[in-house]
Amino acid sequence: MAAATHLSGTGIGRGIAVGTVLRMPDPLPEPADTPSTLSADAEKERARASLAATAAIIRHRGERAGGSAKDVLEAQAFMAEDPTLIDDIGVRIDGGKTAERAVFEAFASFRDLLVSMGGYMGERATDLDDVSQRVVAHLRGVPAPGVPDPEHPFILVARDLAPADTALLDLDKVLALVTSDGGPTSHTAILAREKSIVAIVGVKDALTLADGTEVVVDAASGAVTVNPDADARAAAEAKAAEIAATRDAATGPGHLADGTAVPLLANLGSADGAEDALEKGAEGVGLFRTEFLFLDAATAPTVEEQKAQYVRLLQAFAGKKVVVRALDAGADKPLSFLNDASEENPALGLRGLRALRANEPILRDQLTALAAADAETEADLWVMAPMVSTVEETRYFTALARQLGLKTAGVMVEVPSSALLADRILVDADFASIGTNDLTQYTLAADRLLGSVASFQDPWHPAVLKLVGEVGKAGRASGKPVGICGEAAADPLLAVVLVGLGATTLSMSPSALADVRAELGQYTLEQATAFAELALTASSAVEARAAVTAAAAAK
Amino acid sequence: MAAATHLSGTGIGRGIAVGTVLRMPDPLPEPADTPSTLSADAEKERARASLAATAAIIRHRGERAGGSAKDVLEAQAFMAEDPTLIDDIGVRIDGGKTAERAVFEAFASFRDLLVSMGGYMGERATDLDDVSQRVVAHLRGVPAPGVPDPEHPFILVARDLAPADTALLDLDKVLALVTSDGGPTSHTAILAREKSIVAIVGVKDALTLADGTEVVVDAASGAVTVNPDADARAAAEAKAAEIAATRDAATGPGHLADGTAVPLLANLGSADGAEDALEKGAEGVGLFRTEFLFLDAATAPTVEEQKAQYVRLLQAFAGKKVVVRALDAGADKPLSFLNDASEENPALGLRGLRALRANEPILRDQLTALAAADAETEADLWVMAPMVSTVEETRYFTALARQLGLKTAGVMVEVPSSALLADRILVDADFASIGTNDLTQYTLAADRLLGSVASFQDPWHPAVLKLVGEVGKAGRASGKPVGICGEAAADPLLAVVLVGLGATTLSMSPSALADVRAELGQYTLEQATAFAELALTASSAVEARAAVTAAAAAK
Repeated sequence: MAAATHLSGTGIGRGIAVGTVLRMPDPLPEPADTPSTLSADAEKERARASLAATAAIIRHRGERAGGSAKDVLEAQAFMAEDPTLIDDIGVRIDGGKTAERAVFEAFASFRDLLVSMGGYMGERATDLDDVSQRVVAHLRGVPAPGVPDPEHPFILVARDLAPADTALLDLDKVLALVTSDGGPTSHTAILAREKSIVAIVGVKDALTLADGTEVVVDAASGAVTVNPDADARAAAEAKAAEIAATRDAATGPGHLADGTAVPLLANLGSADGAEDALEKGAEGVGLFRTEFLFLDAATAPTVEEQKAQYVRLLQAFAGKKVVVRALDAGADKPLSFLNDASEENPALGLRGLRALRANEPILRDQLTALAAADAETEADLWVMAPMVSTVEETRYFTALARQLGLKTAGVMVEVPSSALLADRILVDADFASIGTNDLTQYTLAADRLLGSVASFQDPWHPAVLKLVGEVGKAGRASGKPVGICGEAAADPLLAVVLVGLGATTLSMSPSALADVRAELGQYTLEQATAFAELALTASSAVEARAAVTAAAAAK
Repeated sequence: MAAATHLSGTGIGRGIAVGTVLRMPDPLPEPADTPSTLSADAEKERARASLAATAAIIRHRGERAGGSAKDVLEAQAFMAEDPTLIDDIGVRIDGGKTAERAVFEAFASFRDLLVSMGGYMGERATDLDDVSQRVVAHLRGVPAPGVPDPEHPFILVARDLAPADTALLDLDKVLALVTSDGGPTSHTAILAREKSIVAIVGVKDALTLADGTEVVVDAASGAVTVNPDADARAAAEAKAAEIAATRDAATGPGHLADGTAVPLLANLGSADGAEDALEKGAEGVGLFRTEFLFLDAATAPTVEEQKAQYVRLLQAFAGKKVVVRALDAGADKPLSFLNDASEENPALGLRGLRALRANEPILRDQLTALAAADAETEADLWVMAPMVSTVEETRYFTALARQLGLKTAGVMVEVPSSALLADRILVDADFASIGTNDLTQYTLAADRLLGSVASFQDPWHPAVLKLVGEVGKAGRASGKPVGICGEAAADPLLAVVLVGLGATTLSMSPSALADVRAELGQYTLEQATAFAELALTASSAVEARAAVTAAAAAK
């Protein structure tokens, strides 16, 4: 057996797994451009049948998957049924192409069109490729490319995963994910975190791993150990068992070892997730995203339509805190009636509160609907504005929210300027909630969705932690709450550091609550503060994580 | 006469002017799509003649303008001679179109193609529109749209100015520029600064100003006073005279009133500007941009080609400091052999040092050429890396530069993380140079080239100043120099604040040197430090500017 070697990347969470590698199959080769030997009608019938079958299969997969995956797959099914695309395929078949080639070309030309449109549309290009491959595979009678489905458990190695793949991972069989591309906030990482799958992303040489290779995947250290020896394997198995035991032992409200309360809240994308969040021990909602009400709509929903949704959410959390974020459109989630698709750098564009302010009636309607829902329910409703950069924007939003009858109004801190002026922002805002994903993106000036700069996207970076600390300090000085609602809060050890920096609540995907609850219970506030100091003096994210990990192990 | 009213925007510099408004003419209407009554050959001959004449006129204008304007206009002339475009026009004429319509359609279709390519190519779309309008005007025998050219001096009001317009402004006649679009780092603003034209950009209601309206344009306050009374006009004229007198009185090296030296350096884009910079009293070069060596090239220039240019530059500044920035490609200045055009947010992408590191041979060649030029000349050569985000990148660049024989290696601080970790960055870097344009863009998370968020792009923002102060503090603690090379250094009062925050040198467009020199000489270091403290405690850029302006007036 070859000696053990190590590959490294960015671990998601702190899980660990041992198993054998299976790689994502390579994509199908491009269909040859040779003339069809069938009649055009016969080719068209073949294309029609495969498109319809593929749409049905994708839709069925979506129904099995549920949640956000369902929406993604439903959109893919529509692509396979798109009349313009089907016409285009017909025209190409009339020109003498085979069904395979015509499908390939028509999808490719639509793909290029989407890419040229850029922004949100450009990102849908991958979905089109995925549908195209599935249709061509169906035409050929070969299995669709996608996640392998063997009898035994395995560790999936891929360049990156398409939504359709991750949605249908069989959790009983997939022990871990290792991808060569993507950063800690890539689609793959977010889904892995949501589903609590052990994962390491951005492992540069991941694709050198051959099928059947045994590996240890240790998300805490970001290391993939290839061909581990018996000791390494046993140590990994012991660590996995320990993680599971600690996790099962922690229940109830979040707190430190010295009893300091750290309420653990849920990030939710719709009221549908309320029951699951409560089951997992969420003490309220720290971030309720309202984009779902607006997506796929040509215009904003009415006050009444919105109110009904908010009432449903607030009823589910009666007696608990619920922080609702005003519509955060723009950048990677543009809305046609709010955003300008031609921005050169949409992440630095008219997004979040900037877009709402340019379309104030939409903001007024949303706040009005929230106030009306609040009046009829028993939850403790807080509202906050996304993407606030200045004190002036803070004043604008909090004044408007109070004028429309909302009791508690705050802002998201996800832009460096807001963190730097947190003391002045907390004069007007009742609370601050730090979005660590965007804060990291802007602080390091690295697009969090771009693979080539993924290594910068690490919330352990001392510059990001310094900004979090500025907000924490301002919160302590003013006696106002400072929450964290970015992915950083879901990293158990980083969660301890964030509390040490002054965060008073943590909000995360419900599936991360148990691990974070267990970790918080291990340390006192004094220890958390010492960890924070340690992280702040580091020169890099890697050093900060290593220093705190070592200190935590030594305590 | 109507009562005085005020419009406001972002002033460029601190000049003031009084005069009457002339608006940029509206663009020509779209040529009607009616069938031609001439033969196709006749229409083709008309089109050919007008394209050739337009190319000749544009080229002639470029030769008169010189400098960077010449390159822009030369590129426009080539557009009018592009054989693919001419073929496309011919095909449309064969289809029965008039020459006007065929030219309009062919340029529009190329325009859309460029826009769909995005990035640098997308920005060239405006140039194509400009050429198209000129050709159509020539075909019609009407004057080309562009800057008005009356007998009397005037204040030009426009939506925004195309490079071809600004290049040919007659400075004896244009008293000031007022635009409704663009921010302080827009093309118009940068050219205005370069040419020391009084200008206010981003004046929302600028287009409501009718031809012949009298206005006072006060860049220091960002206010356009419409129909000023006699007192207001006299005050403005007195202020303009005072500015000119103070400016003429200051000569020699930059220093504060107490004698503290603040070397004033030039930002240069090629060795061509050396003589002018020296004449204007530059004590060296604080930012030598090297992009000109790489633009319009399919591959990087050789070591020998680069060396020749660097020798030319260094010879011009014998005995003086010259800070050369390594190639800063990406974002708004991509290079085909370095950058990936498909990035969603190029300003947050693989740009600056990130791109060089991914293409290390280009960086090695450049540093090798610089070291060779240094060995043959007598200037004090410093090199620095653009777009550095981390300590690790700092180590990488400074180690490589020293290994290749360069004595003094530092980094640009233009990303918040670098400012926040400046103490750690200055362990390895010999100096830091703050790029305030990008630092402001990232700190406020607002694209500095996007009109809809231009109001955020203000280096007076206390969050930006706080980051500058972090670097200044780290510089003082380590005894290492901290320069400023962004546009902020060219704002005289802000320059004083920057010195108060710890900047040890200031670098700017040579034309700004006199005003900054005069302003620095008015205040002691103690006063500058007090101004800095005042600005840091403000809640907004507007408040910071107002507080320091009031303190300066009261001293």
